[in-house]
Amino acid sequence: MAKFLTNRDENYAQWYNDLVIKAELAENSAVRGCMVIKPYGYAIWEKIQAQLDSMFKATGHVNAYFPLFIPKSFFSREAKHVEGFAKECAIVTHYRLKSDPNGKGVIVDPSAKLEEELIIRPTSETIIWNSYKNWIQSYRDLPILINQWCNVVRWEMRTRLFLRTAEFLWQEGHTAHATREEAVEETVKMINVYADFAENYMALPVIKGYKSEAERFAGAIDTYAIEALMQDGKALQAGTSHFLGQNFAKAFDVQFTDKTGKLDYVWATSWGLSTRMIGALIMAHADNHGLVLPPRLAPIQVVIIPIYKNTEQLDTISKAAVKIRAGLEAAGMTVKYDDRDTNKPGWKFANYELKGVPVRIAIGPRDIENGTVEIARRDTLEKETIKMDTAVKHISALLEDIQKNIYIKASEFKKENTRYVDTWKDFVSILDNEGGFIMAHWDGTPETEEKIKEETKATIRCIPFDSPEEEGKCIFSGKPSKKRVLFARSY
Amino acid sequence: MAKFLTNRDENYAQWYNDLVIKAELAENSAVRGCMVIKPYGYAIWEKIQAQLDSMFKATGHVNAYFPLFIPKSFFSREAKHVEGFAKECAIVTHYRLKSDPNGKGVIVDPSAKLEEELIIRPTSETIIWNSYKNWIQSYRDLPILINQWCNVVRWEMRTRLFLRTAEFLWQEGHTAHATREEAVEETVKMINVYADFAENYMALPVIKGYKSEAERFAGAIDTYAIEALMQDGKALQAGTSHFLGQNFAKAFDVQFTDKTGKLDYVWATSWGLSTRMIGALIMAHADNHGLVLPPRLAPIQVVIIPIYKNTEQLDTISKAAVKIRAGLEAAGMTVKYDDRDTNKPGWKFANYELKGVPVRIAIGPRDIENGTVEIARRDTLEKETIKMDTAVKHISALLEDIQKNIYIKASEFKKENTRYVDTWKDFVSILDNEGGFIMAHWDGTPETEEKIKEETKATIRCIPFDSPEEEGKCIFSGKPSKKRVLFARSY
Repeated sequence: MAKFLTNRDENYAQWYNDLVIKAELAENSAVRGCMVIKPYGYAIWEKIQAQLDSMFKATGHVNAYFPLFIPKSFFSREAKHVEGFAKECAIVTHYRLKSDPNGKGVIVDPSAKLEEELIIRPTSETIIWNSYKNWIQSYRDLPILINQWCNVVRWEMRTRLFLRTAEFLWQEGHTAHATREEAVEETVKMINVYADFAENYMALPVIKGYKSEAERFAGAIDTYAIEALMQDGKALQAGTSHFLGQNFAKAFDVQFTDKTGKLDYVWATSWGLSTRMIGALIMAHADNHGLVLPPRLAPIQVVIIPIYKNTEQLDTISKAAVKIRAGLEAAGMTVKYDDRDTNKPGWKFANYELKGVPVRIAIGPRDIENGTVEIARRDTLEKETIKMDTAVKHISALLEDIQKNIYIKASEFKKENTRYVDTWKDFVSILDNEGGFIMAHWDGTPETEEKIKEETKATIRCIPFDSPEEEGKCIFSGKPSKKRVLFARSY
Repeated sequence: MAKFLTNRDENYAQWYNDLVIKAELAENSAVRGCMVIKPYGYAIWEKIQAQLDSMFKATGHVNAYFPLFIPKSFFSREAKHVEGFAKECAIVTHYRLKSDPNGKGVIVDPSAKLEEELIIRPTSETIIWNSYKNWIQSYRDLPILINQWCNVVRWEMRTRLFLRTAEFLWQEGHTAHATREEAVEETVKMINVYADFAENYMALPVIKGYKSEAERFAGAIDTYAIEALMQDGKALQAGTSHFLGQNFAKAFDVQFTDKTGKLDYVWATSWGLSTRMIGALIMAHADNHGLVLPPRLAPIQVVIIPIYKNTEQLDTISKAAVKIRAGLEAAGMTVKYDDRDTNKPGWKFANYELKGVPVRIAIGPRDIENGTVEIARRDTLEKETIKMDTAVKHISALLEDIQKNIYIKASEFKKENTRYVDTWKDFVSILDNEGGFIMAHWDGTPETEEKIKEETKATIRCIPFDSPEEEGKCIFSGKPSKKRVLFARSY
């Protein structure tokens, strides 16, 4: 199976695309820039959704649903937001088709033109704050802690499966608060939820920090992000949480009476994480054999494959396999017994490696005689033979170990590829040769940030929360700086 | 709280609308015909989703996601489908906005016109079968059993919250099979899943049957539906399952090689159920006090309300309440303890009645002394006092009883309002005075069906699967008929 994949080290971009297609995660559709998320890819998204949703609910949030369409005029209300979002978008102008008088199918009915065009939501701050206006009068109506799972559309010119598509799936949280402090606290809480999710479920070590002004969400006072490092040395933004101040409340005139009877604008946050994370999952862990899925997000955690020469052998093996499956399932694991006779064991081995199933159990006639099974772990490809009756305990521990090991491996990669750089020459050379994260001083101006980007394609990924105060000189301008920031080329 | 509601028997439509708004299920948005599903309404949808999704998976289906957009030309490929769906729809014609040169916000950039317009999916047969074309070559690739949870848009002129909105949420199953028999079997299986869900979870008795040709899904060979009766005597179609024959396979040229090596077109089904079901849930069970939710779909199954005069009393009551809540939750129930000091108990009682919470527990100082709690059931509004230490067992049984009772009540209503009618005079009179379901003979022609609709606004809801063979005369034309069919005015 691996032979269908381009070698990761020769052409990373092609390897990624091959893998998405061959592992049946997604494919391009007939609509430019829009993907079809196939059942196996969608099953990973369902795992991501279920976990995040429970974390959102545990932190007091509830789900709701707002319209797909946003009236065009809504975008103009928040000055920076319109700059960032209202340009490349899908615009609905008509609401009816009619038969083509020339007999060629259907055409747009020119008489069915909308008075005001509707934009397919690229993000929902505007339509949601227009609703919140009617929901909030007093401090008693606050906080509002709402999340939405939905599709959004951004008319991207260059698209890549999962990483950048015109339509994608995501969740967007939109909260409303009585005080600045409470809104900031929420913004921090949610970036921590994302980091917790990335590290403990995706096995993806991340750096938490502030975005520079140039990289902030359009309309935000502050954007916090988690940044992860991919195996090709490029960074990927894996989730953002925005402190929106009173910007959207002012744009949509959402005021409330506080406990003292004073009227004030409401404080806001928003935060989002998308199907892009499936791209991160692939690019952070997969290898030349295929996907390597962390057990906590794997749609199938354990696959059992029978090795047999005749129906009699298969019958005996199946009895043992079904029993093992039942035991594993009772212990909470997701198990598939693949007894299809249409494919040989070798093909199945390769196929489940391609699909990143964490643990494979093989059972042959000799195993039945000996009361054993052969176990292979996907992350290291190591095999061992264990006693059948210890399978549940053994595999349960093994899955935990795999989850940890994938995280450790990614952490070590990140550590090895995070460099503290103090000269422009090294900065350029490292970007061109090694890639990875670079911690360097920056003078804090958008002009310098822009020039660094022009010359090297590297951007400030974030100003890490834990970057210590330290005297230094800007890598580019030589001006004084008090903190290192995180640079990288990115997706 | 009930006083905010219009009386159900005086103005059913207004009562319905009041209830949706006051119980905070949904509201109209700034976009014509599109609703905002508020957290409490969305929580019911999440319950519906979770249950149906598990039923789909138990019958071998998996989820996937296809694009929101459908190229205009796709609709023209299946002749009947285009008639039914391509007319009233949202059409994307442009992909960029630009700043208005007159300084008035943003305008559509005329240079960013799409070569081919994109339709927001009203249903996804076309885009999905265009994908299946690449997925299916051989009988080994079949069956494909895929479901999708998503939003769809139909540009309805007259909209009503949940019942008929321009955008709504639904699931749409799309399956592909090697034989006609297998596809028909799937169509039947899924209408049975819907009926099971309606009866055992929504507590909604339904009639299963075939649609007449005029009422069939555009592009289907056969449509099966479940029809439910609302409290105002009108019918509501609560789910449909379509046998599509080879129509879409032919339209998108999806052929496969069967076991004998012969090339044939693939057989298809599709089936869907939407947020409209929340409307059905309200209209079938609610009363002048508010919603009556079946326990299996209630976001909160039990609410506990403390009755106290001072903080000391509240502290004592809270200890007991928290203990009871823990016991109920451990037994799998969803419980809310509402100890807010911003509202009086009377207001809370009315509010949770409005929201249809199946069981209310009230605890006062005297209950603490006596080791009792007061329990009220929403369906009958009956109260009783029980021993605190029997609460878990008692309420667990009570929820089961409420679920059953709501179903029995709705079944009796349906039985009382299903009439066997043999004369046109009675037919018209019953529709105008009593409403309800009418079982009557029909000559089987679309012409008669159309005339009956014109004269009475009643339509053939379905030809019930269990309608016995019986000699009769068409209610309208007097021509011979062999079966009664189900007539009603409908939503």
